[in-house]
Amino acid sequence: MAGSEAKKVLRKDGEHTVKVALSPTLTIGDGSFVVIAGPCALENTDQVEKASSAVKNAGAHVLRGGAFKPRTSPYSFQGLGEVGLKLLAEQGKKLRVPVISEVMEVNQLALMLDYVDVLQVGARNMHNFSLLREVAKAGRPVVLKRGFGATLEEWLLAAEYLLDGGTDQVILCERGIRSFDNTLRNTLDLAGMAWVKERSKLPVIVDPSHSTGVRSLVIPMALAAAAAGADGIMVEVHPTPDQALCDGPQALTPAMFEQLMQALPPLLSATGRSLAHHTLSAVSGGAR
Amino acid sequence: MAGSEAKKVLRKDGEHTVKVALSPTLTIGDGSFVVIAGPCALENTDQVEKASSAVKNAGAHVLRGGAFKPRTSPYSFQGLGEVGLKLLAEQGKKLRVPVISEVMEVNQLALMLDYVDVLQVGARNMHNFSLLREVAKAGRPVVLKRGFGATLEEWLLAAEYLLDGGTDQVILCERGIRSFDNTLRNTLDLAGMAWVKERSKLPVIVDPSHSTGVRSLVIPMALAAAAAGADGIMVEVHPTPDQALCDGPQALTPAMFEQLMQALPPLLSATGRSLAHHTLSAVSGGAR
Amino acid sequence: MAGSEAKKVLRKDGEHTVKVALSPTLTIGDGSFVVIAGPCALENTDQVEKASSAVKNAGAHVLRGGAFKPRTSPYSFQGLGEVGLKLLAEQGKKLRVPVISEVMEVNQLALMLDYVDVLQVGARNMHNFSLLREVAKAGRPVVLKRGFGATLEEWLLAAEYLLDGGTDQVILCERGIRSFDNTLRNTLDLAGMAWVKERSKLPVIVDPSHSTGVRSLVIPMALAAAAAGADGIMVEVHPTPDQALCDGPQALTPAMFEQLMQALPPLLSATGRSLAHHTLSAVSGGAR
Amino acid sequence: MAGSEAKKVLRKDGEHTVKVALSPTLTIGDGSFVVIAGPCALENTDQVEKASSAVKNAGAHVLRGGAFKPRTSPYSFQGLGEVGLKLLAEQGKKLRVPVISEVMEVNQLALMLDYVDVLQVGARNMHNFSLLREVAKAGRPVVLKRGFGATLEEWLLAAEYLLDGGTDQVILCERGIRSFDNTLRNTLDLAGMAWVKERSKLPVIVDPSHSTGVRSLVIPMALAAAAAGADGIMVEVHPTPDQALCDGPQALTPAMFEQLMQALPPLLSATGRSLAHHTLSAVSGGAR
Repeated sequence: MAGSEAKKVLRKDGEHTVKVALSPTLTIGDGSFVVIAGPCALENTDQVEKASSAVKNAGAHVLRGGAFKPRTSPYSFQGLGEVGLKLLAEQGKKLRVPVISEVMEVNQLALMLDYVDVLQVGARNMHNFSLLREVAKAGRPVVLKRGFGATLEEWLLAAEYLLDGGTDQVILCERGIRSFDNTLRNTLDLAGMAWVKERSKLPVIVDPSHSTGVRSLVIPMALAAAAAGADGIMVEVHPTPDQALCDGPQALTPAMFEQLMQALPPLLSATGRSLAHHTLSAVSGGAR
Repeated sequence: MAGSEAKKVLRKDGEHTVKVALSPTLTIGDGSFVVIAGPCALENTDQVEKASSAVKNAGAHVLRGGAFKPRTSPYSFQGLGEVGLKLLAEQGKKLRVPVISEVMEVNQLALMLDYVDVLQVGARNMHNFSLLREVAKAGRPVVLKRGFGATLEEWLLAAEYLLDGGTDQVILCERGIRSFDNTLRNTLDLAGMAWVKERSKLPVIVDPSHSTGVRSLVIPMALAAAAAGADGIMVEVHPTPDQALCDGPQALTPAMFEQLMQALPPLLSATGRSLAHHTLSAVSGGAR
Repeated sequence: MAGSEAKKVLRKDGEHTVKVALSPTLTIGDGSFVVIAGPCALENTDQVEKASSAVKNAGAHVLRGGAFKPRTSPYSFQGLGEVGLKLLAEQGKKLRVPVISEVMEVNQLALMLDYVDVLQVGARNMHNFSLLREVAKAGRPVVLKRGFGATLEEWLLAAEYLLDGGTDQVILCERGIRSFDNTLRNTLDLAGMAWVKERSKLPVIVDPSHSTGVRSLVIPMALAAAAAGADGIMVEVHPTPDQALCDGPQALTPAMFEQLMQALPPLLSATGRSLAHHTLSAVSGGAR
Repeated sequence: MAGSEAKKVLRKDGEHTVKVALSPTLTIGDGSFVVIAGPCALENTDQVEKASSAVKNAGAHVLRGGAFKPRTSPYSFQGLGEVGLKLLAEQGKKLRVPVISEVMEVNQLALMLDYVDVLQVGARNMHNFSLLREVAKAGRPVVLKRGFGATLEEWLLAAEYLLDGGTDQVILCERGIRSFDNTLRNTLDLAGMAWVKERSKLPVIVDPSHSTGVRSLVIPMALAAAAAGADGIMVEVHPTPDQALCDGPQALTPAMFEQLMQALPPLLSATGRSLAHHTLSAVSGGAR
């Protein structure tokens, strides 16, 4: 990558890596491992409450849930919109964890900022440069997913739009690319994640849910991501995956998520790392 | 494609295919072959004038040129913006041909409608569903490029967003996909074009410039597209490709474009077709 | 391709392109267009006779048929073996056309040479360097299919093994590559074909049957190949595709093949070319 | 994979998984983790000795080295042949570890059986069904690499050729596939490995060297493979990678390999596993 046009996202000699503050009490990029979890789509009060308390109780650091869903078909469930954001924010406050949700267009941005701690730019919008510029101005931490048809270099250059736009609070998220083999939903490019981690000063996390599309592969790939040095994972959990309105087959049950959260600490410990933790002041003062 | 969620873009028994009016006097989708040509990016008055008169004189039906450029890097030339649109519209009026340019975001739409006859949604925005919905409302004819990482089904579903949004003035454009072989810029999927043409009632055109990225392959692929039944092509032409600010290596010289325009009629004739022509009233009344 | 390791397959200034003698009276590589046709697999006497006479009557230049079939599963029909080769050779003699069949392994080579005029190395064996070296020694004309996972450079280097092994009677055959879009069987890389044709002195043909896997796309892609400058095509034809033991969905019916053979001459004529023809002496003297 | 044609390689209810005996004292497929290491190509006595003692001292279980090299270009180093096999076998005897080398063609098989404990069928030969049938007859344990253009189903079906041929001593090896992103040599499909492991009764290992092509990514990917449940890894090690005749950039130095061998035990322990060990009788009796 001698000829990379990316400059700001690359690691320079002697320069600290970027630590992104997901909340006043939670940081990613300091070597510890952050777990973001929750349902693919926010569906209703009961589902959001059950999913949220399940993931929080098992030890998740950040709560996720989609309110605006980019769907390939105009006839698929498009998300609850602001109603969903409210549900998510309520759970975040109640459980004292920061929340993340995807922003799909510039016009949603102001609304999103009222409810979420972390913004997500989805794979289909990685090349939406107008959106990237506006998100950068918001200054809120942002998870930038890799496009499923984007090279590693293009991913770094999309992040460069954010850094050039004035923020360095950027987390990269590998979520699988397309390959000729369609057995699984996507092909998880863990080596690409490690390659980016080596070159960029930004934290990099992995999404084992969208990348595989298969529940039983989520835990093995989450552990693999941890072993390979990722800064965290973003995992989908649903109280009753069979009834999910979106991507049920890849959602972990609460019991499986708990199993994952128990498997992570010894594995991280084997490579000298540990799960992230909210700092003490957080416990007393609330996540936000 | 028995399970296709696309419904409105598919051809139903006994139903006419869609004819898209590119101008009051020019139609695509009626079996004739339409040629859209011009520079990748609008650069300055001299370049726009020279490119426009060259392609018009050689027989192009529609003039193209990018004013807003989606660039992988934030540091690449991003286009002239409204200044470019003005130059393009002036040439369209002067030469009596409709003009097309790419709209990258919802906020540009009102401005674009003042200057262009046909809107283009680029490959990187095929999955930008918010943009698709707004473009549909504008009612202006739109060329929808296939995403370089999008399946044929997803391309049809993106068009479905447009038809579901209220317009059927949609032209599909195959512009190459990504494959493991990076010798050429993309892999032109002509069979995919033919497959879509067989199923959809929408006109389908081919971009032999972006798909190959190599000047010498543009004419062979343009002829192949015509032989395979495409409704037209979109080709990049630059008066001095070596000095182009964007994608020079794939731009035809005016002389090569002339050669292409001379090769097309006999080839189309061999399959019972011909180049489109502006109707008589157009000649007297202007393109718009 | 400045750094290409291929040397012998590349065109040098002032050097003649290679003309390959498919029979004493039929040449490929001289600008005319050669049609190779017949069933995917040789199945039985009746099928071979019907397919052969159908394609010969419609104007095919070479008769094809597989006796040894490389099948993904060990439980699929593996071909008739020598029995099939005999049937094929008989039809070739009777109809005075050369015949081609695939050689899958070194140990089959001596047997094949007794029956076929032209050897085929299949996509799955493009990287079988041991086979290439032995085929080169045989001196018989050979059609080298591109591997579905092979780059253009690797395809040329596989041909380089043949030329380095002592023969220049090599015809390259593009038959589609794998891409993320599995709607069609493969992604036909016509631009790759044109790119190779520009660089290599070897004739290049196209297989529109395996590349698409869909009967209705075979004619459009055959015409596209002709328009793009290919030296010929290899097409599958079956008297009753519904009953084919192998790849029925992509086989043309005899009626469709006739339609193709009528469409080709005007299209070739439009680009200053024509179908190949067996020379006069051939008509009196037999194909072999 | 409801419609899989593979039957013998799949896991059936109540049936034991296959344990493959790499030597009288070393088994793979019993849950422990096997490390195969050595140079890509066997080059000369000094290199083979140094590489062998380095990997053995660090704890490798099997010694690897290529004597016949499948090279894309006919002008690249093609391997030492029998001379190399002798060097490898000598080191195996001296160091009391089994050795593995790649068999490229049927005619090499008898020779290989004189020297190696385990046969390897390379990625380019996964579809060489003739070779698979002969290898099956030999009865020797075989590592079957996945073709870089092969689907997971095709890989299982290639193994099915081996099992149908009479042996179940088969180890599958994921070594990366081709994707549109050519930043790294291949795209390591760890999730595909886990998917196969879930369905097949055969042991599955991972090659982090060929899949990445980059030395610094080998350790992260080896650890990821262990965390994801692979039965082992095959890693390239060279005493002086800068002078390697083949694939130097991906070879670990002896020091890096030692580092890897120290990192594996705690990581495996975290998931309740451990490195394989040669049984006691082996220590006294020799590997073969």
